[in-house]
Amino acid sequence: MKTITPKILKGFRDYLPDQMMPRQAMMRTIEKVFERFGFSPLQTPAIEYSEILLGKYGADAERLLYRFEDNGGRDVCLRYDLTVPLTRVAAQYGNLPMPFRRYQIAPVWRAEKPGKGRYREFFQCDVDIVGSASLVADAECVAVDNEALSALGVRNFTININNRKILTGLLESLGLGKDGEEAGLGVLRTMDKLSAMGEATVRELLAADNGLDPAGIDRLFEFLGIKGENGEMLAAAERLIGSSEAGARGLAELREVTGLAAGLGVPAGRVRVDFSIARGLDYYTGSVFETFLLDLPGFGSVMSGGRYDGLISTFLGRDMPAVGISAGIDRLFAGMTELGLVETTKTPTRVLVAPMDKAALAPALAAAGRLRAAGVATEVYLEEAKLKKQLKYANQRDIDIVVILGEAEVAANAATVKLMSKGEQVTAPLDELAARVAALLA
Amino acid sequence: MKTITPKILKGFRDYLPDQMMPRQAMMRTIEKVFERFGFSPLQTPAIEYSEILLGKYGADAERLLYRFEDNGGRDVCLRYDLTVPLTRVAAQYGNLPMPFRRYQIAPVWRAEKPGKGRYREFFQCDVDIVGSASLVADAECVAVDNEALSALGVRNFTININNRKILTGLLESLGLGKDGEEAGLGVLRTMDKLSAMGEATVRELLAADNGLDPAGIDRLFEFLGIKGENGEMLAAAERLIGSSEAGARGLAELREVTGLAAGLGVPAGRVRVDFSIARGLDYYTGSVFETFLLDLPGFGSVMSGGRYDGLISTFLGRDMPAVGISAGIDRLFAGMTELGLVETTKTPTRVLVAPMDKAALAPALAAAGRLRAAGVATEVYLEEAKLKKQLKYANQRDIDIVVILGEAEVAANAATVKLMSKGEQVTAPLDELAARVAALLA
Repeated sequence: MKTITPKILKGFRDYLPDQMMPRQAMMRTIEKVFERFGFSPLQTPAIEYSEILLGKYGADAERLLYRFEDNGGRDVCLRYDLTVPLTRVAAQYGNLPMPFRRYQIAPVWRAEKPGKGRYREFFQCDVDIVGSASLVADAECVAVDNEALSALGVRNFTININNRKILTGLLESLGLGKDGEEAGLGVLRTMDKLSAMGEATVRELLAADNGLDPAGIDRLFEFLGIKGENGEMLAAAERLIGSSEAGARGLAELREVTGLAAGLGVPAGRVRVDFSIARGLDYYTGSVFETFLLDLPGFGSVMSGGRYDGLISTFLGRDMPAVGISAGIDRLFAGMTELGLVETTKTPTRVLVAPMDKAALAPALAAAGRLRAAGVATEVYLEEAKLKKQLKYANQRDIDIVVILGEAEVAANAATVKLMSKGEQVTAPLDELAARVAALLA
Repeated sequence: MKTITPKILKGFRDYLPDQMMPRQAMMRTIEKVFERFGFSPLQTPAIEYSEILLGKYGADAERLLYRFEDNGGRDVCLRYDLTVPLTRVAAQYGNLPMPFRRYQIAPVWRAEKPGKGRYREFFQCDVDIVGSASLVADAECVAVDNEALSALGVRNFTININNRKILTGLLESLGLGKDGEEAGLGVLRTMDKLSAMGEATVRELLAADNGLDPAGIDRLFEFLGIKGENGEMLAAAERLIGSSEAGARGLAELREVTGLAAGLGVPAGRVRVDFSIARGLDYYTGSVFETFLLDLPGFGSVMSGGRYDGLISTFLGRDMPAVGISAGIDRLFAGMTELGLVETTKTPTRVLVAPMDKAALAPALAAAGRLRAAGVATEVYLEEAKLKKQLKYANQRDIDIVVILGEAEVAANAATVKLMSKGEQVTAPLDELAARVAALLA
């Protein structure tokens, strides 16, 4: 018989249980933090009409869409992110309570060139507030970012923040104002490659692709070179671009958002003004956020987002303010693994019930039923096997408690409870078994 | 500006928060039950090479695959179920601990004609045990089915069980034995339409499509007409098909699995022998299970599965025993909704913090931060608004506790805690606020 080689597509992954258990625990932790901030879960389809997604992400990103004809000849795409589907939902349902605070944890698909930390299928984990222009909403995103990472045990990280209006002000000061919106977006996209490609390459690209003159490029890098505490940076930027209306407004918003985030309890030093953040996506209009693990330089942002007041207008015909932030679950998981914050587990099972012969099977099943009813994660050894083999199985899976039922135990209506780590064992009557085991586990 | 009409594809759904909250709670409950039975989570990609999925489900099902060429020209499919990806995993990784008990809760895609309770994207929720031929594993599937539905609050249901070997015995007795394997599968597929199409139509199909003569069709329906308690049914079937080796073995297995399930604590009367169950999929080889909500006749099975010892051989070149059961989350959710078992919730938020003026914003944010730190799901009202509007917002979302901060409260370093349902309010010092609110919620 011809067999098919079992394999998966490049850029895709199987999460086997030892990896999936901590990853799932991570998602559940984040989910709880989101709910603690009053965000509700939303679920949208994996497949959308192509026209819903096209024209939102910029041409470079659009090439990465998984786009195909479905069985009915419809032009469809797999979702590329969770933000555009959210804006569709916000426009589609007239009765959504506003402001609409929702979270969604779900896979997205991008036909990227696979590489270290870059996959074609990965989980995003988004919170957004739709329907509020208040900067408190921006600060909520910063606060929930801080709380989510803290709840995961991450300690040494910063949430870097910028404002697209500051960049508009900068572009205006380079002579790429309203009339040069497209040119300005081009400059933003090139700038966004700075951390990946370095200054020299980006300078070349700015001249070649974006047509900036040497003076303009110098001014850009003078701006990007601003360093210091948040307050000092804001003041220096004020001097360079404060004469632009957009620039001044962006700086004021940035100042206010950092203040509000502090008010919500985000510790001092965590939020950093960072004028180098542009975010690649075209749709941001105000605050933009990125989050860096300081112990992993060059690792890239693990939680990013911003304000996108114009995006919903493509469906609604009018602007609807919105702001959000998104964790890349898989990159974050990879980062936490590198930081030693991930404990792999082999199984959720805490107790193995080991019947020593056929006659012991019925009481073994009954014991497993009782243990489970008491909330104890329990497996029954499925095959007929010698005790030694069953104990080896428990050992291999780090199952510490084995409940043994043999001839003597069955006769005495009892079970032997063996603690693998200590090599100790006690006898427990079957009707006390669940309570005894629960006590051992507590 | 031209706007795009926001819409989703037929057969796909958005789950808005009021529906998604109970649906997610349902999935979390099932997940916990699965772990209590020692099943570990697995995650596989949504997209697989087409050759992995083709030839597994039968021709009718295969037409429903979402199959397309990816951006690199590869022939790929969206996953159709969670079982075939599991078998790929079981064959691909040599170091999986055996028996491999895994669960997976994830969407699958089928280009079905959309209809009541039939969607093109739906969540499956599977448990399987790979690597054990023991009938205890079959019984574990019945027990976890029983426990999952019970944990969801479902009371009146049966787990109906049959065995493919019994059907093979029946087919042998109709003269469609080993040489007529394909013909036999055809009869099984036609029989599988019985509950949907009724006896008259199925009789016609058996003659027209499967070439059975009237005597054979009568014998088939005599078999299907067997009624009574499990023991009586097994005895009656023994008389009709017991002379076939496969039939006798199937009946023995069925008897043993029902006994083992009872041993695991599944209540009497819940497990029903049901010779009409064939399951449409080609790959089952032993036990087959379906689960019916007795208060919703004609609703269809909410949890189904069976033993498929041959499926993994398509990858491995040799059989590997496996058995599993799968809940259709969306159908189950629809059923539970009809039964009144689903409580919709508008928001996870328990407390709204309402600042009455700009000066109260900073203490309001601080209060929200403290409440969240104490584990209380809290929203801050984002805009500047009159108290009346903020209370209306709380009312609309069923948020019972509003923490009000105005000039007087700020001056007194306190907050007014208003219980919307009782119309009562008390004043609490800010540093006791979290404890007071937690007490109100407890």
